[in-house]
Amino acid sequence: MKTRFDLATIIGFLSAFGLIAIAMGFGGGIGIFFDLPSILIVLGGTVGATMINYPSKDVIASFSTLKHAFFIKKDTEPRVVITNFIALSVKARREGILSIDSDLRTVSDLFIKKGLQLTVDGFEPHSIRNIMNSEISSIRERHQGGSEIFTAMGTYAPALGMIGTLIGLVQMLKSMNNPESIGPAMAVALITTFYGAVLSNLVFLPVAGKLRTKSKEEARTKEMIVEGVVSLANGENPRIMEQKMLSFVSGKDRTFGKKNK
Amino acid sequence: MKTRFDLATIIGFLSAFGLIAIAMGFGGGIGIFFDLPSILIVLGGTVGATMINYPSKDVIASFSTLKHAFFIKKDTEPRVVITNFIALSVKARREGILSIDSDLRTVSDLFIKKGLQLTVDGFEPHSIRNIMNSEISSIRERHQGGSEIFTAMGTYAPALGMIGTLIGLVQMLKSMNNPESIGPAMAVALITTFYGAVLSNLVFLPVAGKLRTKSKEEARTKEMIVEGVVSLANGENPRIMEQKMLSFVSGKDRTFGKKNK
Amino acid sequence: MKTRFDLATIIGFLSAFGLIAIAMGFGGGIGIFFDLPSILIVLGGTVGATMINYPSKDVIASFSTLKHAFFIKKDTEPRVVITNFIALSVKARREGILSIDSDLRTVSDLFIKKGLQLTVDGFEPHSIRNIMNSEISSIRERHQGGSEIFTAMGTYAPALGMIGTLIGLVQMLKSMNNPESIGPAMAVALITTFYGAVLSNLVFLPVAGKLRTKSKEEARTKEMIVEGVVSLANGENPRIMEQKMLSFVSGKDRTFGKKNK
Amino acid sequence: MKTRFDLATIIGFLSAFGLIAIAMGFGGGIGIFFDLPSILIVLGGTVGATMINYPSKDVIASFSTLKHAFFIKKDTEPRVVITNFIALSVKARREGILSIDSDLRTVSDLFIKKGLQLTVDGFEPHSIRNIMNSEISSIRERHQGGSEIFTAMGTYAPALGMIGTLIGLVQMLKSMNNPESIGPAMAVALITTFYGAVLSNLVFLPVAGKLRTKSKEEARTKEMIVEGVVSLANGENPRIMEQKMLSFVSGKDRTFGKKNK
Amino acid sequence: MKTRFDLATIIGFLSAFGLIAIAMGFGGGIGIFFDLPSILIVLGGTVGATMINYPSKDVIASFSTLKHAFFIKKDTEPRVVITNFIALSVKARREGILSIDSDLRTVSDLFIKKGLQLTVDGFEPHSIRNIMNSEISSIRERHQGGSEIFTAMGTYAPALGMIGTLIGLVQMLKSMNNPESIGPAMAVALITTFYGAVLSNLVFLPVAGKLRTKSKEEARTKEMIVEGVVSLANGENPRIMEQKMLSFVSGKDRTFGKKNK
Repeated sequence: MKTRFDLATIIGFLSAFGLIAIAMGFGGGIGIFFDLPSILIVLGGTVGATMINYPSKDVIASFSTLKHAFFIKKDTEPRVVITNFIALSVKARREGILSIDSDLRTVSDLFIKKGLQLTVDGFEPHSIRNIMNSEISSIRERHQGGSEIFTAMGTYAPALGMIGTLIGLVQMLKSMNNPESIGPAMAVALITTFYGAVLSNLVFLPVAGKLRTKSKEEARTKEMIVEGVVSLANGENPRIMEQKMLSFVSGKDRTFGKKNK
Repeated sequence: MKTRFDLATIIGFLSAFGLIAIAMGFGGGIGIFFDLPSILIVLGGTVGATMINYPSKDVIASFSTLKHAFFIKKDTEPRVVITNFIALSVKARREGILSIDSDLRTVSDLFIKKGLQLTVDGFEPHSIRNIMNSEISSIRERHQGGSEIFTAMGTYAPALGMIGTLIGLVQMLKSMNNPESIGPAMAVALITTFYGAVLSNLVFLPVAGKLRTKSKEEARTKEMIVEGVVSLANGENPRIMEQKMLSFVSGKDRTFGKKNK
Repeated sequence: MKTRFDLATIIGFLSAFGLIAIAMGFGGGIGIFFDLPSILIVLGGTVGATMINYPSKDVIASFSTLKHAFFIKKDTEPRVVITNFIALSVKARREGILSIDSDLRTVSDLFIKKGLQLTVDGFEPHSIRNIMNSEISSIRERHQGGSEIFTAMGTYAPALGMIGTLIGLVQMLKSMNNPESIGPAMAVALITTFYGAVLSNLVFLPVAGKLRTKSKEEARTKEMIVEGVVSLANGENPRIMEQKMLSFVSGKDRTFGKKNK
Repeated sequence: MKTRFDLATIIGFLSAFGLIAIAMGFGGGIGIFFDLPSILIVLGGTVGATMINYPSKDVIASFSTLKHAFFIKKDTEPRVVITNFIALSVKARREGILSIDSDLRTVSDLFIKKGLQLTVDGFEPHSIRNIMNSEISSIRERHQGGSEIFTAMGTYAPALGMIGTLIGLVQMLKSMNNPESIGPAMAVALITTFYGAVLSNLVFLPVAGKLRTKSKEEARTKEMIVEGVVSLANGENPRIMEQKMLSFVSGKDRTFGKKNK
Repeated sequence: MKTRFDLATIIGFLSAFGLIAIAMGFGGGIGIFFDLPSILIVLGGTVGATMINYPSKDVIASFSTLKHAFFIKKDTEPRVVITNFIALSVKARREGILSIDSDLRTVSDLFIKKGLQLTVDGFEPHSIRNIMNSEISSIRERHQGGSEIFTAMGTYAPALGMIGTLIGLVQMLKSMNNPESIGPAMAVALITTFYGAVLSNLVFLPVAGKLRTKSKEEARTKEMIVEGVVSLANGENPRIMEQKMLSFVSGKDRTFGKKNK
């Protein structure tokens, strides 16, 4: 399965951070926005809260799902999947369902493979649908897990930004001897709030959103496949199968047969 | 399918922005509210976050759904649709379901056409309902996608306004030599918050709302059509068909047969 | 259908606004809280955003549902409805379902009338339930539409209050020559926030709430009627019908047979 | 049905308000936190908004549900209910379902009584389940109504606190002649915000929460009873009935047969 | 059932609090962040509000569920459960369902034991599924109760932080004689807000999250067991049983047969 960059993510990051960097540069340089302890509090605290919140294996898994935000799997086109299923259906109706067995080796998609295997093994259409739906919800739960963790980070980050700012404010207010030092001290205190807002709104929440969208799209394709497998197991007319599968494909994709362009 | 302006949207924009412009003019001119770097941060950052959040094809598609907020499709009236369906039903009961085939060419609405085609092709009522409902949810998902993206922009915009204000505040606090410059510097810092609030509450969120309402309305009409097609395929009495379809039409539209006036 | 004032709404408005007016009067007169441009921004901007958000016909319809917040429809008592249905059921079991036809003219409630008409016309109980439920959800959607629009106004109003305050603050900060003028200028800037909070929390949101409650209540009564009509069409024992309908009535109303007292 | 104090509620109120009173006392006495006009605005305004939001009969009913937050109904133990149902089941299987009629008089719980009455009257198990479930949702809606009203008060109170503070701030800023009076004036302005936060977070929201929990618990017991009645009407084996009813009881209560200890 | 530390929770707490302590130390020592009355208000008030909100037995039970956030139950591996079920299925199909009775004594998991007992006792598969699902939702409700209470604490804590700060501010503003004392007084006032934010975001909310995740995981395993028991009671082919159970296990766990590593 080939992959390629998700250009939207890359362009989004570049434009958002580029513009902010330019705005920083205008008013006296980027240097004043860099403060290591502040980064440690916000980033470390957010990761800490997330590790309390989720099992470590899920946190680690979420980093592996992170790649889905930056890369696009060159999945089989829905149209191609439908065409293949129609061919299988025609064959099955002519030579019997067991004739599909020989095609199984050439199927690369593991989900389709499993569905066909269940069909060849003579599972009832009803059982096939149950097993595959349960699998979809299993996959979906795992993917949503990743998205959920980034959403959680997106809510913890601003909170830790505020915690950092409160620490800075209390320290400043306790030792307010020199009025001239108030301004810079407050600037430093505000930087954690700034980090929290940037991390949340330009990293964690958008990434969580992309993972969620991708997960939905994948589930939709998988639901289409279930419809095809069940239709095959039912020995339905290929034309009915086509109509059922097509109804999962949006208008454009039907005409052009392209996706994620 | 003819379209015309959605007057409500136009009037809404004019009144909201007009009143704000007048309020600005009262207190020293509109000029002080214009700051290019601030616009770049808020608008560019919001679009950037949105591109990370959604696949590029969805972001682009959302701009094509934007027209639904400004224009009204002069859709077939529900009453007219019902009348046509009753006529078809009478014909089908007299001359057989296949007699509808000749009417298919004159149908302009693609959704009705597909439903009738499935009926003529002899699909079972149950299958027709499934295929068409799946299509409705497919269309709905695409439309909600557009609405969802504008909602996301409506939540990112104020966040980026705050980020811009934090940048301005930190810069101002770091170099607080001249007390007289504090006021104007803070005014500039606040302008990004102002942009974020205006973009969110007077553009992104209301537009998202209108897209959502239109999508619901369209789905409702389509559900009525499904009811009609299934009733036709079932060979039900035209009077039953009428009652079933009418129950999707709100009271007023029943009497006047008018919509979107 | 007679109506009377909804005393709770009237008392609520009087007490809330009266207390606020008294609090204003204590600290230097109500006059300083009146500022026409501020009212224009908040109210005009809120209405503008709402018109972008909803089709104009829905905004207009929401004003017609507004009366439900101030008046109480003297609806037929649930108990009376049940008694009438039992009488009809007894008659139908003795003289046949068609004997009800003569009672139809005396029924004033349009929803009951429609249900009985469907029964007399020989629709299947299953179809009657579907058609009437679809009608209930149609009515419900229309009513919720009204409630939803006021909720939207309740979220736009504070946002526009904040936008107005930001405009005032920026204007003030830009021209901070005279320290003495800062106080009054800021007072004016805050007034839009005040208007936004009052409009939202003492007008829009409570009115939206009342519309929602009334809509729920009405739907409940209509669901009871559906149960009665279907029971009638099924030729069920009047005692079973009574039990089924009574289960939609809350305990108190069962004993006293009174509602909205 | 005997009742006793809900100690948790009492202790909760005492500890929360006690600690706050102590904190007040430390810094100059409780007196400075008492301001009649502020109380009037926040409490009166909140009640006003609530009366606009809900029908007066619901507001009044919510006060009668208030007692559920302070008292615990010494309801029949789930274990005892199950034991009684098993006895009834054994009797019904030996002497016929009509033999239960004589036991009806001794049942004090009205919900159980109604269920048994329906069974003796020969209603079908399916109808019994429908009628009783509809009754549960009727009770639930009424209880949730009470909880919902307190939740609404919990959201209006802070809003009215803010409205009061805005009134105070505007008055102060308009007449800022004496710098020394700013502090105390602002202290007074903040007091309404304080009242709003205390009323919301230490009274309205926690009480709404307790009402919600109690309502859920009651519904659960009632669902168990429905299971028992239906099992009885079905003439099921007492052991099956026991298993079905037990599955509604949490682990601990099964062993000890105690609740609300 | 053996348990071991949940390292993620421990590491999360250490890293979050460690970093915050370091940040405090940088700016003048941790001492200035310690204020007993502030701790009493925030912690005591939060616990007070929670005790009003929930029945005392639920609050106490929530502390017993707290251990699930810090320890991991070394539950039976899903793979092992599946293997055992397949063995039972093979035996039952060969020697009859009653032959399982002898295996019951060796089963340590109470939930599996109950399921097998119901099967041996000859309950219908349909009833078994109902009873066990009702049990799962019973367990789930209890666990979610714990999670819900910590979530409530996570919302009350910042509110009480704000209440504490308001008390401090009012006291400070009322007696503003010495300008030099304003800074430190305000620092103290802010400390309750700081406590509220830390308790909420680094203790209550993350712990609530972990409890929720663990509860979901447990429910998933139990749902797999129900599938196995019902499949056994139905006398289904062991291969079908395996496929059904496997669909509840995520991809990785299928290969490695490991969990919570």
